[in-house]
Amino acid sequence: MSLGLVYYTGTRRGNGDMRHVIGIDAGGTATRAVLLDETGTCLGYGRSGPGNPTSAGAQLAVSNQVIATLGAVGKSGITPDLVMLTLAGGLGHESDSPVATALAQAGLHTSVQVAGDVMSAYFSATAIATGYLVLSGTGAISARIVDGELDGLRDGIGWLLGDEGSGFWIGHRVVRAAAADLEGRGPATALTPLVLALVDDEALPDEDVRRPEVWKVMRRVYGRRPVECAEYAPLAFRAAASGDTVARGILDGALDGLLTSCGSLIHDDDRPIVLAGGLLYDGGPLSEGIKARYPGRCLRAHDGTAGAALLALRALGAVADSAALARIHETLAPLLA
Amino acid sequence: MSLGLVYYTGTRRGNGDMRHVIGIDAGGTATRAVLLDETGTCLGYGRSGPGNPTSAGAQLAVSNQVIATLGAVGKSGITPDLVMLTLAGGLGHESDSPVATALAQAGLHTSVQVAGDVMSAYFSATAIATGYLVLSGTGAISARIVDGELDGLRDGIGWLLGDEGSGFWIGHRVVRAAAADLEGRGPATALTPLVLALVDDEALPDEDVRRPEVWKVMRRVYGRRPVECAEYAPLAFRAAASGDTVARGILDGALDGLLTSCGSLIHDDDRPIVLAGGLLYDGGPLSEGIKARYPGRCLRAHDGTAGAALLALRALGAVADSAALARIHETLAPLLA
Repeated sequence: MSLGLVYYTGTRRGNGDMRHVIGIDAGGTATRAVLLDETGTCLGYGRSGPGNPTSAGAQLAVSNQVIATLGAVGKSGITPDLVMLTLAGGLGHESDSPVATALAQAGLHTSVQVAGDVMSAYFSATAIATGYLVLSGTGAISARIVDGELDGLRDGIGWLLGDEGSGFWIGHRVVRAAAADLEGRGPATALTPLVLALVDDEALPDEDVRRPEVWKVMRRVYGRRPVECAEYAPLAFRAAASGDTVARGILDGALDGLLTSCGSLIHDDDRPIVLAGGLLYDGGPLSEGIKARYPGRCLRAHDGTAGAALLALRALGAVADSAALARIHETLAPLLA
Repeated sequence: MSLGLVYYTGTRRGNGDMRHVIGIDAGGTATRAVLLDETGTCLGYGRSGPGNPTSAGAQLAVSNQVIATLGAVGKSGITPDLVMLTLAGGLGHESDSPVATALAQAGLHTSVQVAGDVMSAYFSATAIATGYLVLSGTGAISARIVDGELDGLRDGIGWLLGDEGSGFWIGHRVVRAAAADLEGRGPATALTPLVLALVDDEALPDEDVRRPEVWKVMRRVYGRRPVECAEYAPLAFRAAASGDTVARGILDGALDGLLTSCGSLIHDDDRPIVLAGGLLYDGGPLSEGIKARYPGRCLRAHDGTAGAALLALRALGAVADSAALARIHETLAPLLA
């Protein structure tokens, strides 16, 4: 076998002929991007600030998406064949995303596809192309994925209109229950001292008809964005764990809301159900409640960057099976360290 | 009897010696002021724009309070002995209100006292100095008044923390129920077409996973201030009247919230309970529910300007009995025409 033949084989099947993709998980806090080859081997990782246009503004979001992408490419000299950008609300398949233009200006000429963060969350846990996602973080959404495409959504319509069983939904009820308790128009609850510990540094007005604690809660809640009521959600889990009836009732209501939303979407089949978001942590009452309803079908979501990477392989037409997903997870982990 | 004696009697007991007051009802939409003598006879009426410092801003609110006051004084040449300013959140007894300074600058040197709009609402209906108020408008609050002083409050802590059974509380549930119905994760309800009739002119995004009606509702709700969800409250009354189960459930919950709030404040005595605010209209399900719980004790609130006038008489130390309140109502009505 001549060196020439080895070299030729190399350019056909080896590294030189290998195609590459980038998967981006653009979130409200951070944007993460990973460069991988078409076998799922992760080669580079980049991270930047907020990348969600809705919360960060379009310009900042695009800048952070570019920075994370360039960080993932690093000094590899690789130009990816395709970039898969996943972000909240990215439900379409736009190929002319503003980030493609910005990447070209930065010297990286590549095509960009866009998908929702429900897709990256789903494919972080499984390579099976048809299944379901139930997510509860600050907001809450359920999704049905069919043949790798988003097929249906329930809820995810925001704190004022929906987000049943989300962190906002729970936290909002926590602080309302504490206010009702403080005013003597609701049952006593262990949530009240937990809420008061958070509001203790609020100033007091010189008015004496109401209890000062009520004013403190009002100052804090109305001094922040409504959605920040989600900060009280962890108190419900703490108080419920110690047997508080009010907190348990709130979490029961949250589980009921989540099951109603996803139940209107989930078929009676064997497809996987991926549980995502901070409130569906393993062993918690919400995830356990969903698992009890759908035994043997629930998987926990992993890093959304891995899901974006698998989506990128799918979009490229590369093999995107369980082995590829396992390889993504295995080779991504050391890059994060 | 000489003219001198008549004149002398006149300056002691007649018009020349009569004391005068002004009552102001400063609201979020309009500010109304009435000039009356110490017997309760209304002599002048003035009206201006928003007079609530929280919503209108301090400067505009004071300006409108001054304009309404000067309008009530008119060309009478009367300098009132006292001005009673009533407004939302005016719970104290400040005598050095900024409006006193502004009135002095406008040439009207008088003292100003401040009271809450719960007080003017209560005293618009009764001159009995001890009793209760239950109010449901955009917000909801219950109050106990003892010897003419505010003695206790329940709720009235705003749309995010409380306002149980208010227009916001109801309207919020109406639009959430319509969204859940449209998404197929809540029961069908007659509220949905009523909500859709309001959102019909909203633009549509080019996204096809969700029903376009869901997007229309989202655009409208998130395009306005959260508290404007109160606009959907009347739909609950309409749908409930035609037998809709979801709407009836919402109104049952609202009544329950109102009864819980006021029930923690109302003693088992014979004191009057004044029902105020647009949602407690006579014959409506909420007012009838409260009347059923407290039979023979409920009165409907009238024009808050009349209550402010009676409060002004009380503050002056004048007779502020049922006859005085009746005189206020009788003589105020023609001034409004």
